[in-house]
Amino acid sequence: MYNLKIDYAEGAHPAILDKLVETNFIQQNGYGSDEYTLEAKDLLRSKLNKPEAEIYFVSGGTQANLLVISFLLRSHEAVISAHSGHIYANETGAIEATGHKVIPIESKDGKITATQIKQTLASFQLRPHVVKPKVVYISNTTEVGTIYSERELKALSDCCRAEGLLLFMDGARLGHALTAPTNDLTLERIAELVDVFYIGATKNGALFGEAIVFPQAKLALDFDYNLKQRGALFAKGRVLGIQFLALFQDDLYFKLAKDANDMAMKLAEAFQAQGYSFLVEPSSNQIFPILPIALIHRLQEKFDFYVWKSINAEYAAIRLITSWTTDELMLEVFIAMLNE
Amino acid sequence: MYNLKIDYAEGAHPAILDKLVETNFIQQNGYGSDEYTLEAKDLLRSKLNKPEAEIYFVSGGTQANLLVISFLLRSHEAVISAHSGHIYANETGAIEATGHKVIPIESKDGKITATQIKQTLASFQLRPHVVKPKVVYISNTTEVGTIYSERELKALSDCCRAEGLLLFMDGARLGHALTAPTNDLTLERIAELVDVFYIGATKNGALFGEAIVFPQAKLALDFDYNLKQRGALFAKGRVLGIQFLALFQDDLYFKLAKDANDMAMKLAEAFQAQGYSFLVEPSSNQIFPILPIALIHRLQEKFDFYVWKSINAEYAAIRLITSWTTDELMLEVFIAMLNE
Amino acid sequence: MYNLKIDYAEGAHPAILDKLVETNFIQQNGYGSDEYTLEAKDLLRSKLNKPEAEIYFVSGGTQANLLVISFLLRSHEAVISAHSGHIYANETGAIEATGHKVIPIESKDGKITATQIKQTLASFQLRPHVVKPKVVYISNTTEVGTIYSERELKALSDCCRAEGLLLFMDGARLGHALTAPTNDLTLERIAELVDVFYIGATKNGALFGEAIVFPQAKLALDFDYNLKQRGALFAKGRVLGIQFLALFQDDLYFKLAKDANDMAMKLAEAFQAQGYSFLVEPSSNQIFPILPIALIHRLQEKFDFYVWKSINAEYAAIRLITSWTTDELMLEVFIAMLNE
Amino acid sequence: MYNLKIDYAEGAHPAILDKLVETNFIQQNGYGSDEYTLEAKDLLRSKLNKPEAEIYFVSGGTQANLLVISFLLRSHEAVISAHSGHIYANETGAIEATGHKVIPIESKDGKITATQIKQTLASFQLRPHVVKPKVVYISNTTEVGTIYSERELKALSDCCRAEGLLLFMDGARLGHALTAPTNDLTLERIAELVDVFYIGATKNGALFGEAIVFPQAKLALDFDYNLKQRGALFAKGRVLGIQFLALFQDDLYFKLAKDANDMAMKLAEAFQAQGYSFLVEPSSNQIFPILPIALIHRLQEKFDFYVWKSINAEYAAIRLITSWTTDELMLEVFIAMLNE
Repeated sequence: MYNLKIDYAEGAHPAILDKLVETNFIQQNGYGSDEYTLEAKDLLRSKLNKPEAEIYFVSGGTQANLLVISFLLRSHEAVISAHSGHIYANETGAIEATGHKVIPIESKDGKITATQIKQTLASFQLRPHVVKPKVVYISNTTEVGTIYSERELKALSDCCRAEGLLLFMDGARLGHALTAPTNDLTLERIAELVDVFYIGATKNGALFGEAIVFPQAKLALDFDYNLKQRGALFAKGRVLGIQFLALFQDDLYFKLAKDANDMAMKLAEAFQAQGYSFLVEPSSNQIFPILPIALIHRLQEKFDFYVWKSINAEYAAIRLITSWTTDELMLEVFIAMLNE
Repeated sequence: MYNLKIDYAEGAHPAILDKLVETNFIQQNGYGSDEYTLEAKDLLRSKLNKPEAEIYFVSGGTQANLLVISFLLRSHEAVISAHSGHIYANETGAIEATGHKVIPIESKDGKITATQIKQTLASFQLRPHVVKPKVVYISNTTEVGTIYSERELKALSDCCRAEGLLLFMDGARLGHALTAPTNDLTLERIAELVDVFYIGATKNGALFGEAIVFPQAKLALDFDYNLKQRGALFAKGRVLGIQFLALFQDDLYFKLAKDANDMAMKLAEAFQAQGYSFLVEPSSNQIFPILPIALIHRLQEKFDFYVWKSINAEYAAIRLITSWTTDELMLEVFIAMLNE
Repeated sequence: MYNLKIDYAEGAHPAILDKLVETNFIQQNGYGSDEYTLEAKDLLRSKLNKPEAEIYFVSGGTQANLLVISFLLRSHEAVISAHSGHIYANETGAIEATGHKVIPIESKDGKITATQIKQTLASFQLRPHVVKPKVVYISNTTEVGTIYSERELKALSDCCRAEGLLLFMDGARLGHALTAPTNDLTLERIAELVDVFYIGATKNGALFGEAIVFPQAKLALDFDYNLKQRGALFAKGRVLGIQFLALFQDDLYFKLAKDANDMAMKLAEAFQAQGYSFLVEPSSNQIFPILPIALIHRLQEKFDFYVWKSINAEYAAIRLITSWTTDELMLEVFIAMLNE
Repeated sequence: MYNLKIDYAEGAHPAILDKLVETNFIQQNGYGSDEYTLEAKDLLRSKLNKPEAEIYFVSGGTQANLLVISFLLRSHEAVISAHSGHIYANETGAIEATGHKVIPIESKDGKITATQIKQTLASFQLRPHVVKPKVVYISNTTEVGTIYSERELKALSDCCRAEGLLLFMDGARLGHALTAPTNDLTLERIAELVDVFYIGATKNGALFGEAIVFPQAKLALDFDYNLKQRGALFAKGRVLGIQFLALFQDDLYFKLAKDANDMAMKLAEAFQAQGYSFLVEPSSNQIFPILPIALIHRLQEKFDFYVWKSINAEYAAIRLITSWTTDELMLEVFIAMLNE
């Protein structure tokens, strides 16, 4: 069985392992004050063109989400998310466990619009009997692989700034978003448009690791306490610093993400060639073709993937996900089965 | 400057790095259902002689502490800890952030006695105006390097069971405790006497990692939700499984801890030979000699360590800590400076 | 302007004020151990036919809801509520502030069905990435004035018991439910079918006060701590005991609720006589007639009420609410304006 | 048995009951927007000489404490309190339940000094491994009946402002403090020196009620949400407004407190006349004479009070507490027994 189910089935890119081995016995300070972490932060700041940005490395996406959101909100404030948003649907109430309501918004493509935000604000006016929306959570790529255009993100950003909201982008798959065929955003532009975001590495080359970025240092004041309090501060912070250093030297991070996207697009084209449609238009490293159930069963004999949603008695949508490790030869096997 | 300040200044034991490299491209399931994690848990269960134990791997001690304690307590319940306990003194209110009071007990040697627990219970009788003590938190080794004897732990365990309390042992340095010269406890015996404990690897060979053990599976029911909710569940759980597998094959974990203790004892003997006394009697890999301030200044020219506590105008206690990486040659340099 | 907007615009029934005055200088113990509180609890137990029930008096509905739900749930557990449920829509994230997700269910009439609960459970299977539903929250009357029949409540109760869920009824307007024209439930029957409920008095004769009932004492173990911890325990608990004593002697509570319902029914009949329809069928002391906007404007000259929902350019639904204090003469004025 | 154990054994001052009865059927808006509440707030603002102060009425002291402290603190911040402070010792971990550590300071007389605050700050420097002290909690009178002088409060206030801390005064017995024989503070002066405080009425004439005062409106921004979220907002807010209106018209509040203090002083003089000493010097309505145990037993035949602390085999300190309801004749009986 070949994995097309998750994009975290393997370990790390060899460049990371090499650097771990190479630096292993060099003594360093703890808790993120090691030289690799400091260097990695500087490298990211230069990529962002934000010399004053505050950056924190943490181990995973749920951790990043709960750290950021609980930090930004006061007790009566809430976060807005698409219904499909990871914080609403797949994180075991992690945000609520820190005391805050997640306000869900319906979305077909996983994205939120400025109009929806305004409608939500309009429906939360009965002060003090309702929470006060304060943070807007978006993900890029979204949970269904779609991406935000510069225009869309700008509209969201303008809306948030006009309404006194903070905009937070979950970038668990930010590399895939920024290397998607139709993308017109950059790290730099994101750093201008959002208040906080993170650059996900767990699903793009690292053993684990997300880099939380506050483009404006002022907003990050005291975030270090929060890291420690929530159990997110590594004694050997070097393990995180080393990974981001390896990933952002020579832009390896973007190369890996592009590889993953290329593999997904190759699959997408094969489905299109056969006339199949998609639940959501393919944009990045996860695609959702709608297939005959009999074909799904045949593919399941050799490949592992999610059956995402029943369409009718004969058809269902599946999710195929690729990563920097996806073997092109295996995709050819897949496509051959499809074309049979 | 040679580090005698922290026991997490280097990376991982090479056996771990080798295993990470060797297994890197083998596809695995996510979130701790990979085969390395499953195998590592089985290996630990056999070492514990507890086939039914539930084991969870997490990334650090603060995370382990807050996960366990928040899981065991209902909202009106509290945890008892020594004043010097890590959860009371050094974790940024992590337990309180989950909603629970930490009740401090004075302790000179970092340990808690059954008598103190009974006194504490007696002083929390004014129901419902006081919290209800429910968990007793101890650490072994303690934050000042002391260890619990079997007799002491048995007395605590008996007291807790008689009083309806749960006993939780923070084992961030459990390897050092179990290989300390005067130790008479074993992993198996601890699994009989406490309700939950963890086996710390961050400070004993791993890049990071603590193995939380519930000797009785029943008490762990639903703990998996808790891991996810608090941001502690790794997508690539293999990274934790591989490390524990490497550490517990051939009992490497204990060899490394014993090496660290041996280094500390070598230093301790050098101080004793010079007639110096200690703030706390040396037991494991951290020792607290009381030295003339002038000598401390000389040592600080070549070595990095904490000045722990002022004794008087001329003397202070320092903390020296060793690990499996401590270089014996450097200790000889240290001792030579001491003997000058 | 005459109030038909809220059912808490006046003070207390005179029987309560009389009893407050009469007992004012009799010394009593504090914190709910006064003799009036004890007597009121006994009186309620006899009405419930549950000698072992545990009863707690608190000051309001949001307080009762957050106390009960946070008490019943462990951190990874969640509560199911109708989308219109007070805890989801109107309590400023009070439940989330105690750390728990509220899972919303769509409902047209404010009620939840056993089928919906099963569907919800089916959609929360991806353990441990989702919360674990544990409590079902219903209100009777609901937020739109509808009531549960015995058959409906039995079905819910059976479902909850089969699925290991706890059933909690918000009874802020329980008196109105139990005296509604079509009601077939009793206090006794409710005490058999639900795990916790409360008997609301704030909206039915008291200055304030809700009686939380645990029909089975076992489930209430340690609830007293919770009361104090959340700031809900009155030093002069007598104020609550006295009110419930006055309300349940001679079943005043039910008489007041029936009066309120009678007033609403009188209005409902006037609308029906004029051929107007309702957003929700009138069942208790709040009704939602759909009226021409011009008529609404005329009525607003003399009466204060909520315009609840726009129907179209010419029609809107309004909410009229009555209480034990509603003046029948004023309703006749209202009806006269309607009939003009 | 006559009560000298608690100062909340009776109901309310008749002026309050009268006003409740008199206003009972006047329709009012809910949730604190009734005219009595608005008028009472204006009256208090004029007494405080702070036209811009924000005032909120809540039902009790624990509620006031948890509302204020959780509102002022971000998640990594903590509150400093005397060891004997109500929030540390007697509120069932209410502050911790909102996620915050209470940092205890030793105090013999229940008071905190500026020096102690500076020492505490100095011991919380190991950022980010420790919480960040942000609020200083004091009570006036303290839990042992002592009071702050203007000089002491000024020193605390200066220290807090210099250090970026917020100063919060629990005034559960503020009336008794401000009418104590040695007092030199006023409501106005307190409003200048502290950032938040409350004026307690539960123990001074009301059925229940505390008025939380933010002298500077800016600090109170959004506090209304907090009230609702924690279950502290009364539907019939009038009940609180009416009580404060009755208490502050003609300064009844201060007259009642002075009466209580006078009664305690009468007792104190009787003890002094007999040569008895006190655990804490008598200042307000609670006194702590040290008496022979045999005498305590005799007094217990007719009077109910706390035996506070054992002194030695023959002596113990008791607590006697008086209120505006204390019957002078009963005190004469008490004194007669003492003088026998």
